[in-house]
Amino acid sequence: MTTPEKFEGVLTPVITPFKDDFSPDAARLLSQCKWMISQNVNLAIFGTNSEANSLSTEEKISLMDYLVDGGIDPSRMMPGTGCCAISDSIKLTKHAVKLGTGGTLMLPPFYYKGVSDDGLYQNFSEIIQQVGSSNLRIYLYHIPPVSNVPLSLDLIERLIKQYPNTVVGIKDSSGDWNNTKRMLDAGWDDFRIFVGAETFLLDNMRNGGAGCISATANVNPAAIYNLFTNWQSDQAEKLQEELDIVRNVFQAFPMIPALKSAAALYSEDPNWFKVRPPLTALNNEQIMGLSKKLKDISFTMPGIRDIQ
Amino acid sequence: MTTPEKFEGVLTPVITPFKDDFSPDAARLLSQCKWMISQNVNLAIFGTNSEANSLSTEEKISLMDYLVDGGIDPSRMMPGTGCCAISDSIKLTKHAVKLGTGGTLMLPPFYYKGVSDDGLYQNFSEIIQQVGSSNLRIYLYHIPPVSNVPLSLDLIERLIKQYPNTVVGIKDSSGDWNNTKRMLDAGWDDFRIFVGAETFLLDNMRNGGAGCISATANVNPAAIYNLFTNWQSDQAEKLQEELDIVRNVFQAFPMIPALKSAAALYSEDPNWFKVRPPLTALNNEQIMGLSKKLKDISFTMPGIRDIQ
Repeated sequence: MTTPEKFEGVLTPVITPFKDDFSPDAARLLSQCKWMISQNVNLAIFGTNSEANSLSTEEKISLMDYLVDGGIDPSRMMPGTGCCAISDSIKLTKHAVKLGTGGTLMLPPFYYKGVSDDGLYQNFSEIIQQVGSSNLRIYLYHIPPVSNVPLSLDLIERLIKQYPNTVVGIKDSSGDWNNTKRMLDAGWDDFRIFVGAETFLLDNMRNGGAGCISATANVNPAAIYNLFTNWQSDQAEKLQEELDIVRNVFQAFPMIPALKSAAALYSEDPNWFKVRPPLTALNNEQIMGLSKKLKDISFTMPGIRDIQ
Repeated sequence: MTTPEKFEGVLTPVITPFKDDFSPDAARLLSQCKWMISQNVNLAIFGTNSEANSLSTEEKISLMDYLVDGGIDPSRMMPGTGCCAISDSIKLTKHAVKLGTGGTLMLPPFYYKGVSDDGLYQNFSEIIQQVGSSNLRIYLYHIPPVSNVPLSLDLIERLIKQYPNTVVGIKDSSGDWNNTKRMLDAGWDDFRIFVGAETFLLDNMRNGGAGCISATANVNPAAIYNLFTNWQSDQAEKLQEELDIVRNVFQAFPMIPALKSAAALYSEDPNWFKVRPPLTALNNEQIMGLSKKLKDISFTMPGIRDIQ
């Protein structure tokens, strides 16, 4: 097993398909992952938009194994492995390291609110020590609008100082550019800062960021990757505007079922409509509304039908 | 297996002891459960104050088995079995039913926020159908200050109407008496309404409630049970005031480590101080402060040393 290189570029929390009985559909997940890879997008499987927190630890382990057995290069994977129970986080993270994944994206435990930096530090520290591998690469996951458990700059810095070769990056899904900017300005050496939406991709790249980990890369991968590779070109602001137009369409709907609806519509595979409770699928009116808006902007998902 | 009778009276989210390596300490948990039973308090193991959401599904199953093997009557147990992942909720709930527990206390999935009543209904409905047992008794768990996912009166009523023999009660930990009162006034037939703190116990009993499921019953069980049995006596308001004095001492500290510190101090067993990350134990100054305040009100935990 080689030492993982740090991630940069575009990753996506890969949407997780479900069967009629709500069990995860590993074969369709593999197809979506293959399409992402073909579009130069890396795999932040088990992110928020993957409905990861509606999956058990056993289901996640089984899906990871299926993807690797199915030919996905584990170094392209950054699975979400941060759970409420530290025992789950350790188990999942150990498995991710064993498979040779390029890193893991780690939520803080998110049930108990108002917890101290000391408590959160101890959580991450204990996970790192119990996993005990020099191949572990952690990307912290700051998403206070959903987790309701923010990661403070003090906490991040303390973790970087204690574990410089392990805590190597962060996804900032605060939706607050000022917060991202504070991290970019903090002077953390080669610390990989990803924004949680392509909305901030150009700003992030111009300020020394590493890329984005974005839900809409599930549906608009090539264009997002194109901005990542051409952020220094004269066309960059135009490319950013084009990304924003697509993003705005999806943001007008509940994001996860909207992404899955687009996957269903453009792959002509209705199985993609399914979400796991407590989420609900778009209703027919919403699906038609989404479809019309996407047609209006001449949106396409090139190649998705060939792979699925 | 006999059909479970509905709960009433006093239950507690039993505090969960941990060993030095943060693994659950099943033997000490059994002792605490035995002490609770000796004080007429039933066992809402795996509640919020049990640090349940810091435990994996496997750890909970293993602890449940240990308690039953250790002689705890399963009909006295109301384990928390509501998880983020419906697959975990189904697995845990099935196991609780198999063991013959008197019921289960069920959180909604709590990662995704702003979910619809339809999505939450589908979560509970799917669990009930997949568990598929006439012995399943669900007590819903409404704790919006922590879960950030409230259960609306409409949702509760819809579940009661669809599953009248299964959805038989609720714990209201909103801390909002007006919310409890609305449920008490809703006219749901023999639906067992528990308040989430003894602070509201007398009010709840006077309005047709079933009792309380309270964290502080871990440390003050006899007095809380005494009010439950004597709520119609002339002494009831005085008994309520006495409970409030104790509760106020604990509420001046982070509740879970304060409960554990009291257990440690009064059982003379320092292992009880330990909490699992992301929580942190009280520091020495806080422990001394708690100890002094408890002495000032002549607080005791009779019998705890004999059992532990």
